[in-house]
Amino acid sequence: MLSTSQHPLLTRHARLVTILQSAKLDALVLNPCPSLTYLTGLHFYLSERPVVAIFVPGTPTMLVLPELESLKGEGLPFQVKLFTYGEDPATWQAAFRAAFQAAGLETGQVGIEPGYLRILELRLLEAAAPHLNFISAEEALSNLRIQKDAQELSLMRKAADVAQRALQATLPQVKIGMTEAELASELTLILLRHGSDPVFTFPPIISFGPNTANPHSFPSERKLVAGDLLLFDWAAACQGYASDITRTFAIRKVEPEMAQIAQIVQQANAAARALAAPGVAAGDIDLAARQVIEQAGYGKFFTHRTGHGLGMEIHEPPYIRSGSSFLLQPGMTFTIEPGIYLPGRGGVRVEDDCVITADGMETLTSLPRELIVLEL
Amino acid sequence: MLSTSQHPLLTRHARLVTILQSAKLDALVLNPCPSLTYLTGLHFYLSERPVVAIFVPGTPTMLVLPELESLKGEGLPFQVKLFTYGEDPATWQAAFRAAFQAAGLETGQVGIEPGYLRILELRLLEAAAPHLNFISAEEALSNLRIQKDAQELSLMRKAADVAQRALQATLPQVKIGMTEAELASELTLILLRHGSDPVFTFPPIISFGPNTANPHSFPSERKLVAGDLLLFDWAAACQGYASDITRTFAIRKVEPEMAQIAQIVQQANAAARALAAPGVAAGDIDLAARQVIEQAGYGKFFTHRTGHGLGMEIHEPPYIRSGSSFLLQPGMTFTIEPGIYLPGRGGVRVEDDCVITADGMETLTSLPRELIVLEL
Repeated sequence: MLSTSQHPLLTRHARLVTILQSAKLDALVLNPCPSLTYLTGLHFYLSERPVVAIFVPGTPTMLVLPELESLKGEGLPFQVKLFTYGEDPATWQAAFRAAFQAAGLETGQVGIEPGYLRILELRLLEAAAPHLNFISAEEALSNLRIQKDAQELSLMRKAADVAQRALQATLPQVKIGMTEAELASELTLILLRHGSDPVFTFPPIISFGPNTANPHSFPSERKLVAGDLLLFDWAAACQGYASDITRTFAIRKVEPEMAQIAQIVQQANAAARALAAPGVAAGDIDLAARQVIEQAGYGKFFTHRTGHGLGMEIHEPPYIRSGSSFLLQPGMTFTIEPGIYLPGRGGVRVEDDCVITADGMETLTSLPRELIVLEL
Repeated sequence: MLSTSQHPLLTRHARLVTILQSAKLDALVLNPCPSLTYLTGLHFYLSERPVVAIFVPGTPTMLVLPELESLKGEGLPFQVKLFTYGEDPATWQAAFRAAFQAAGLETGQVGIEPGYLRILELRLLEAAAPHLNFISAEEALSNLRIQKDAQELSLMRKAADVAQRALQATLPQVKIGMTEAELASELTLILLRHGSDPVFTFPPIISFGPNTANPHSFPSERKLVAGDLLLFDWAAACQGYASDITRTFAIRKVEPEMAQIAQIVQQANAAARALAAPGVAAGDIDLAARQVIEQAGYGKFFTHRTGHGLGMEIHEPPYIRSGSSFLLQPGMTFTIEPGIYLPGRGGVRVEDDCVITADGMETLTSLPRELIVLEL
């Protein structure tokens, strides 16, 4: 089963075997999450019904899932064994137990993904295999997925292009008096018209005025008025790969200090991107952006890391954060997104998507980074 | 803080205190999930950064969250204490520890939601409060949220209306040769145009031909051809409250057996809805639908429960499943969605949204339930 045949999923399975060996893991258990899709091509809705895939080197992939999902186990390019259960939650445990019995796995170290696996699945796993030790496989899964191949990069380029064209088509729709929620809906449907997947990695963050000072604002009924900053933090997804961009605009005349912080943020973004290359530490890239903002006297208003990895997840390794000694390598994809946030007044963020190349870095996003004034 | 003042969140907090007492829980810990939004009005993105709210009766609500989210703790109608951390994951643990120290909670039973809380948060909680016992609060949270109030029902009515009008506007866009994914995008943007929230509880399930036999199909590149069944399973959301509807159509002339199963499913749907009323067991409603399908000889092709609760979640209690003795009460909202799935050929499902009233049941959805032929 795990031969390095031409099918990309088999290649991934073979790499998983090597990575599990290095990590001294005897198996891997995943619930519905991007790593599961990466390894199987399957999509499951995360719901109240537990679904897990169990990967044990040298045996078919095992899927524990509801009967009504069993068609998903057909026609896969790798060997699979299904363990299904019915609609009574009392039947879940037996399916989990049968899977571990079939795996012949009684003792050992089993990797899990702590950011996805829920107590729901953990309790079932622990009861099904009481002598197994379930530990974090976070690093192993990062190793598996962190360097994107050519096909993944091509989807990420497309996702960046779709997002950028969608924003350009949305700007003429911005009107004084419209709400954040209305503009978020407008951008979402234009993203779809431009070819984004109907499954978004996150819904657009659209914030006006003082709300722009909250980096993770949620679109509200706040209406747009002259003098506002307008911040878009939005994503497109293409076959499951994401872009993630932020641009900030001025609605007519804004406070002079807002124009000033926009310039500082733009410089911080440029400094970080100029430094990114193979072998550079993530923490040094963070520092490059942070120094620009600190030297301008706004250090305490840059309240987050400079960026995060990007791919099938909107936040994934590598994290571009202060003090990180993680060394960037070709094929790694991440955002650079410094910001300055003045509570109660407003904030500016400039976010680009980047990929480390053989000898430097390519920025996948190209929309203008300065504070553009919308006269409306 | 927990007085039954006029603010609906304070009323909910007061109800929570009573419910925790009955469940013998000393506290409740939630990560980003609908119950957290229900109790705080706050929205957090579930990400690699852990966020939890800790509810201990008689003390302010405690929020452990990243510094960059701290603005979300301002202006809330209830007392709150924030415990923030920076961008280095090594700082997470201290924030969790400080929160439990401030709570003065060292021993006791703490409720969690097993379908949402991840290993990520559990490990931090266990290390922060090693003498606390973290156990499922599933039933307590169901008691808190299962009977919808007038405002919640009005949002659910609106979500049903938006979804139905969006489907009617989408049908004229259906064309031979379009893909499932294209039609899913079209329906999504029409849902937004009709006023759905930009955050969907789930993306539309659109399936053609044999794919309709997979109840949880994922929109693919399969093209629509004459003779296909076409199944829509779609949702709108209004201020976080969902509808969830399924209708199946025939593209020109389909196999006679498909028309026949469509009629049986429609009868099963009607039988279940006719029975629903206060005091009726969920299992009896399931049985009403199941018997119609079994008597027609298709019992083994109805592979799932008859329905599920609906509200802030697309699947929540009460579950309308075989053998359940759970008694329905006024204000409970759920789907009725029998189906027949013939593997490799096609499937039909008819799904409506229902609410138990003082003396019976009201169906919130009203689109025709018969197999309508689209001549295109």
